[in-house]
Amino acid sequence: MAVYTEVSDEALTAFLSAYEIGTLLSYKGIAEGVENTNFFLHTTAGSYILTLYEKRVRVGDLPFFLNLMEHLAARGLACPQPIRNRAGVSLSELCGRPAVIVSFLEGVSVKRPGIDHCWALGGALAGLHAAGADFGMRRDNNLSVESWGPLFAGAEAQADTVSPGLADRVRGDLAVLQAGWPAGLPTGVIHADLFTDNVFFIGDALSGLIDFYFACTDAFAYDLAICLNAWCFEADGTFDRDKGAALIAGYEAVRRLTAAEVEALPILCRGAALRFLLTRLVDWLDVPPGALVQPKDPLEYDRRLTFHRTAMQAVDYGWGV
Amino acid sequence: MAVYTEVSDEALTAFLSAYEIGTLLSYKGIAEGVENTNFFLHTTAGSYILTLYEKRVRVGDLPFFLNLMEHLAARGLACPQPIRNRAGVSLSELCGRPAVIVSFLEGVSVKRPGIDHCWALGGALAGLHAAGADFGMRRDNNLSVESWGPLFAGAEAQADTVSPGLADRVRGDLAVLQAGWPAGLPTGVIHADLFTDNVFFIGDALSGLIDFYFACTDAFAYDLAICLNAWCFEADGTFDRDKGAALIAGYEAVRRLTAAEVEALPILCRGAALRFLLTRLVDWLDVPPGALVQPKDPLEYDRRLTFHRTAMQAVDYGWGV
Repeated sequence: MAVYTEVSDEALTAFLSAYEIGTLLSYKGIAEGVENTNFFLHTTAGSYILTLYEKRVRVGDLPFFLNLMEHLAARGLACPQPIRNRAGVSLSELCGRPAVIVSFLEGVSVKRPGIDHCWALGGALAGLHAAGADFGMRRDNNLSVESWGPLFAGAEAQADTVSPGLADRVRGDLAVLQAGWPAGLPTGVIHADLFTDNVFFIGDALSGLIDFYFACTDAFAYDLAICLNAWCFEADGTFDRDKGAALIAGYEAVRRLTAAEVEALPILCRGAALRFLLTRLVDWLDVPPGALVQPKDPLEYDRRLTFHRTAMQAVDYGWGV
Repeated sequence: MAVYTEVSDEALTAFLSAYEIGTLLSYKGIAEGVENTNFFLHTTAGSYILTLYEKRVRVGDLPFFLNLMEHLAARGLACPQPIRNRAGVSLSELCGRPAVIVSFLEGVSVKRPGIDHCWALGGALAGLHAAGADFGMRRDNNLSVESWGPLFAGAEAQADTVSPGLADRVRGDLAVLQAGWPAGLPTGVIHADLFTDNVFFIGDALSGLIDFYFACTDAFAYDLAICLNAWCFEADGTFDRDKGAALIAGYEAVRRLTAAEVEALPILCRGAALRFLLTRLVDWLDVPPGALVQPKDPLEYDRRLTFHRTAMQAVDYGWGV
């Protein structure tokens, strides 16, 4: 939540002269984006977000993300649209950082989603999967099951300092997931990070999806599993099956799950929870002193795994209820 | 530069229901404002800034600031205008903090002002002094000459750890300023903090003034002295007399300085520099570990004082050249 790179009026004006988006009226650094610097821009042509990529996002992956957003926007999905400059490219450079301007999307993130929000999210997620069907690029999911062992190896020795017994619990999850991770499910472009911050509503209507910087090629149902984790647990760690049912039904109103996907849903949900537990755990153990960013609590996902370890069937997540 | 208070969509929507500014479309925390939390709001009625007052700003002073902005805006000055809610009040409460919505002002702060910017600033400053002439409230300047001794007393023992000899230099300045500080100059509402961040331009045209949270009742020429300090020194610490001349001439094109003001200009400039040196010094020595805000360098004003200690006449600042 910070502006890592200051951009002067002179640098920005020079940068914008390569674009056809009118005259700069104002820009403000946004206290959002854990990993990048974002500015809100007003020009005589409208509202935009300017992103400077700071780290983690590998520059080689940016064309995948930007082309994907352009592809999805062209198919009518409400998502930020990269703006091409006069040279016809959207990926440029500002203050020594890779930089991109995207269209601004109106909408508000919902902190405590209700059943209607979950239903709307399901439909939007299926719409995203459909809109990405003919996207020509591929990016492997580098945070899927193969990565979890190595991720955990770097945190294993310290895991019990975060919560007693955590290392044992993760070892157990890992063994189950590595042995049983499903193959051959319907695959395509997934968002892979569709938390509530990345979904906008205006009033009760879903107005768009943002932040495609974890998007990759993986099983559609795994994306649904990520959303079930991110949207359908209560603050006390219990799973709200009504919200799960709404999310799945909203999804299936646009794209029906196959029998294999339905069967795989519990293990996919457990895997998604472990993925976020592990990356949060690594970040938690790696906070530099004086950090601007407060890391997210890994134990939130440890509590969710308590549910996943006992949930055996898709019906436990609200499918078909 | 941070969002100190998180505001949920639910809290904000409830808050906005007391206002007649349409439906919420989006809001973003702004990485601006050292002391308050600011959100940029889009509603169906337009763009606004929502400010939550965190500290330093004394709640008892807020009516002065808000009434002043309303007064100035009503007289045509381009500044944020507090929005009254249905109950007719602009000062409300959100998330346990005093909170205000003001109109959004387009414009960009100029990091390195040129001569034309200084001229425009001078005119706007005189316009502000004129627009405030019939403002009915009064607020003493609690950061004027009487405060500098006590401020310094709290930092004196550690001053030389910041720069060798600093304590002696400040003692010398204090003695001169306390003995010779002018009285009886034309007085009224001054901005008292018109740094480049608080002045907006669109292209080369000045589009507005913001941040009235140091505004008070004091000598007009002291406000000019603050601007000469903030706008007319180069990065290497030298004073640019051409910029000073433009700033003063721009001011006098709207309001002529009296002979007493012209005579007092050097000591007012020296005092203004000491005021910012002292508050920055106190902040510098008081940074908590892990602070989100990097304090401003007090020695910038120590270098400026090197010039002020030798400048004896208004002509040294560009008056009448």
